[in-house]
Amino acid sequence: MNQNFIAKATLGRLPIYLRFLKDIREDTKTVSATAISKELEFGEVQVRKDLASVSGHGKPKVGYITTDLIERLEAYLRQGSRSQAVIAGAGKLGRALLDYEGFSDYGLEIAAAFDMNIEKPITSAFGKPIYPMSEFENFCYRGDIKIGIITVPKNAAQSVCDFMVKSNISAIWSFAPGNLRVPDNVVLKKENLALSLAHLNQQI
Amino acid sequence: MNQNFIAKATLGRLPIYLRFLKDIREDTKTVSATAISKELEFGEVQVRKDLASVSGHGKPKVGYITTDLIERLEAYLRQGSRSQAVIAGAGKLGRALLDYEGFSDYGLEIAAAFDMNIEKPITSAFGKPIYPMSEFENFCYRGDIKIGIITVPKNAAQSVCDFMVKSNISAIWSFAPGNLRVPDNVVLKKENLALSLAHLNQQI
Repeated sequence: MNQNFIAKATLGRLPIYLRFLKDIREDTKTVSATAISKELEFGEVQVRKDLASVSGHGKPKVGYITTDLIERLEAYLRQGSRSQAVIAGAGKLGRALLDYEGFSDYGLEIAAAFDMNIEKPITSAFGKPIYPMSEFENFCYRGDIKIGIITVPKNAAQSVCDFMVKSNISAIWSFAPGNLRVPDNVVLKKENLALSLAHLNQQI
Repeated sequence: MNQNFIAKATLGRLPIYLRFLKDIREDTKTVSATAISKELEFGEVQVRKDLASVSGHGKPKVGYITTDLIERLEAYLRQGSRSQAVIAGAGKLGRALLDYEGFSDYGLEIAAAFDMNIEKPITSAFGKPIYPMSEFENFCYRGDIKIGIITVPKNAAQSVCDFMVKSNISAIWSFAPGNLRVPDNVVLKKENLALSLAHLNQQI
């Protein structure tokens, strides 16, 4: 997907455009960047740049054809629709992520969680599967799953991380404190929630 | 705390320096930026800059006095030791944050969680209090609590946010999808976990 890489801030606005356009599509066949900008309270230049990154430019005096723009946005966001992720560690945070519904906005799906302390498959509050960790590798290979989320305690994180790499995971999102080592061909993103809160606290 | 505001990346490294220095303090009375840099695999320039932001410079050929530097780092990070935060929404994510132990690295403490669906005070898995939402305002005033964390569903987020502002909260960290409106004197930080995962997915 690298050829279509867009900035994180832009990516974050795409589902907002999409939702807005779907709301108006019945009544509004064409829509200008100016109108979108006013309605969503985004800068007009920003709206033009954002939409240009997934679509062509709007026509002068006409704007975008609403349904076309919806299609482009959906196509862009759906690039990830076959992007499934798995979670290692079905504690509170792991289960919160497993059942979180916001991922589908970006065409992402959490396929399952895995936990060392589970002996037989169970389901989460929202009916998502939680499997014993022993099934992790097979599950990832079978589903060609490339994204792994680490929500195990710190002292288990590196071994889980190594196991994910061995299971052909190529992008790892870790909530565990401390550093993790990954090979060069694996993307690692660390989420440091404590740091985020500390940073917010500095701004008071 | 604004007078001592430092970059988030620097802030993120301070607990790492602190831990390292505590490990070596028995045997190493003085330590150079070069030695710290080697041991932690951070660039030497970065180490010097990071430490300068909380301490003076090290002495030429001697470096820093280990215990002094530990004191400075602790003092800096402890600035926030009276920074307590509260959580609104004691679902899985709220409880995960309530029981998360990493906040203390930055002198932060989650004092309690609150939930609309709880009628009598209960405790979390790790013994932290969860109160009915009706006690929120009093609790915040009594404890002079300035930081609120929103982990309620999207449709309740704005009203909870308004209620936090009314309860004298001045920094809000929201995990709820969608936008929130706050007065100018309130700092709002939105955590969009779906976007973080989508952005990681783009980098595969």
